[in-house]
Amino acid sequence: MKNQNVPTMKDVARHAGVALGTVSKVINGIPVGEEYRMKVEQAIKELNYEVNTYARGLKMQKSNTVTLIIPDAINPFYAAFAHYIESALYKEGHFMVLCCSNGILEKEIEYLNMAAKNQSDGVIALTYNDIGKYVPENLPLISFDRIYTNRFTPRVASDNFTGGVMATEKLLECGCRQPAFITFNSPYPGEADRRKNGYLHACELHHITPMFLSESGSRDMLSEITGFINAHRHGDGTLDFDGIFVNTDYNAYKTCRLLQDMGYRIPEDIQIIGFDGIHKFGFDENELFVSTIVQPIPALAQTCVNMVLSKDRELLPSLTLLPVSYQYGGTTRE
Amino acid sequence: MKNQNVPTMKDVARHAGVALGTVSKVINGIPVGEEYRMKVEQAIKELNYEVNTYARGLKMQKSNTVTLIIPDAINPFYAAFAHYIESALYKEGHFMVLCCSNGILEKEIEYLNMAAKNQSDGVIALTYNDIGKYVPENLPLISFDRIYTNRFTPRVASDNFTGGVMATEKLLECGCRQPAFITFNSPYPGEADRRKNGYLHACELHHITPMFLSESGSRDMLSEITGFINAHRHGDGTLDFDGIFVNTDYNAYKTCRLLQDMGYRIPEDIQIIGFDGIHKFGFDENELFVSTIVQPIPALAQTCVNMVLSKDRELLPSLTLLPVSYQYGGTTRE
Repeated sequence: MKNQNVPTMKDVARHAGVALGTVSKVINGIPVGEEYRMKVEQAIKELNYEVNTYARGLKMQKSNTVTLIIPDAINPFYAAFAHYIESALYKEGHFMVLCCSNGILEKEIEYLNMAAKNQSDGVIALTYNDIGKYVPENLPLISFDRIYTNRFTPRVASDNFTGGVMATEKLLECGCRQPAFITFNSPYPGEADRRKNGYLHACELHHITPMFLSESGSRDMLSEITGFINAHRHGDGTLDFDGIFVNTDYNAYKTCRLLQDMGYRIPEDIQIIGFDGIHKFGFDENELFVSTIVQPIPALAQTCVNMVLSKDRELLPSLTLLPVSYQYGGTTRE
Repeated sequence: MKNQNVPTMKDVARHAGVALGTVSKVINGIPVGEEYRMKVEQAIKELNYEVNTYARGLKMQKSNTVTLIIPDAINPFYAAFAHYIESALYKEGHFMVLCCSNGILEKEIEYLNMAAKNQSDGVIALTYNDIGKYVPENLPLISFDRIYTNRFTPRVASDNFTGGVMATEKLLECGCRQPAFITFNSPYPGEADRRKNGYLHACELHHITPMFLSESGSRDMLSEITGFINAHRHGDGTLDFDGIFVNTDYNAYKTCRLLQDMGYRIPEDIQIIGFDGIHKFGFDENELFVSTIVQPIPALAQTCVNMVLSKDRELLPSLTLLPVSYQYGGTTRE
């Protein structure tokens, strides 16, 4: 039921004879050539664009709620994500309907339909299924990490590739000569898969032969990791690797425990770096489980909220990656 | 806008000339004397009670949402509580609006008003303020733990007193001769305060002189605990106590770290029991931070949901305590 008489940013661009991005830049105060700026301002004036955008905003603002779909609220990464989504929405005068899908496709579909029925202003989804074709028309959707087919969905994620490079190079910087990599991925493609690409790229850069365990799912994670360690273990107990980058903090923590149970010292014999930046008890800044590549959860949440509430969806990027950082957590030398 | 012509359970009781509890028992299939059962069934029939209850249910069911107010979603106890509230609501065809107040009274009030405005079916609140007088009229409210004045609010909590007794007796059972107690409480009264009563009661039962640190707030928790330890520490390093029951898992974990940094071995020299039942990474059943008294979070959440959606609010108990249990987590001998 979009009012066709309300000018969009596209109309302004057409009227001014400039690219859409130029209009966006002018509106957002980013410098453009003086000639372009004047053309855009003239078109905005003539089309009465700003006033109408505001009116359109009021018109489109339906329920003041945004739906967040996550697998569960117990995993500390998801819990923190939900927390910061709520904070960011609150600042914009919106409330969050939290939906825990347990990764079940049927529940995800049901939540999407509920969001449409209740006139939710949009959905932010962190799912393990490709829900693209089930999203009701006109329901703004932002995906965290996961790629959805059958529907254009802007995605927000951490810069996992750089994180993979960063972890591998940090291990080298801490004195490792042969860093290995362990990952258990979702069967559905997502940005997290790029952690492995980052590891492989760093190996190539530093002339290191890659050595990795890369599995889909995690049915029997502990025995898979044990098998990998044993395959690289010699009669005298020495290992082929002296550092491991593991794809999550949880898996890294479990790997540390396995190695410690075998008699290896962390970080003296083997150094470990995880990925996520989970704190003990969720919130204790001083207590990480392992040395790790930190995902910027507050910034990721804020970005998802800005995008889901954006009035100019046609200008949203397909993929937005936010920078990660390294934090020492006791399982490396520094 | 309650329809005065719809009979309530109270009307049935009056019509049948029996107590309200008797009506409830009959409706819920709990045995009562045959004579009473017949009277109630007759009254239900004559007042056409069941059919109207259903109609009233449909009428009262406003938005299919319930609002949960918690301080934050990062603390693993709150996160798990939110998770199980969502699951229980989903089973009843309701959705959860999650509100994180950071313990700020103004935000709690704003969330309550939003819930009323958006015709939320009810509110479940876990707050650190006495919000009783700010709750909009006719908005069903269930409190987790906290006592609200100025308004009757059914409360749900763990059986903290029994938990306190259980923790103290477990320390004795594990060979402790002098268990101490450490607590940092909210300045607002709540059921969690009863952990201390449980400790004191167990001391009395077992003829032990209580030895405790009991503070409001936790501004400088670590130095308060250090001070308490030093006050009970002799020149040769021996301590007056050989076990400590600490009021939360987080505080217990911090106490362990302090003692370990002083050179004491846990559990060989001192045994520690916490309270809450927090798992590492939120969900890993095998990994507790400390030996602990476990709060039954799924049952607590289910009870809150049953109550907030209850059609017979006049029958709700003022306080419902659910049983806790002990779980070994490495900081005791068993």
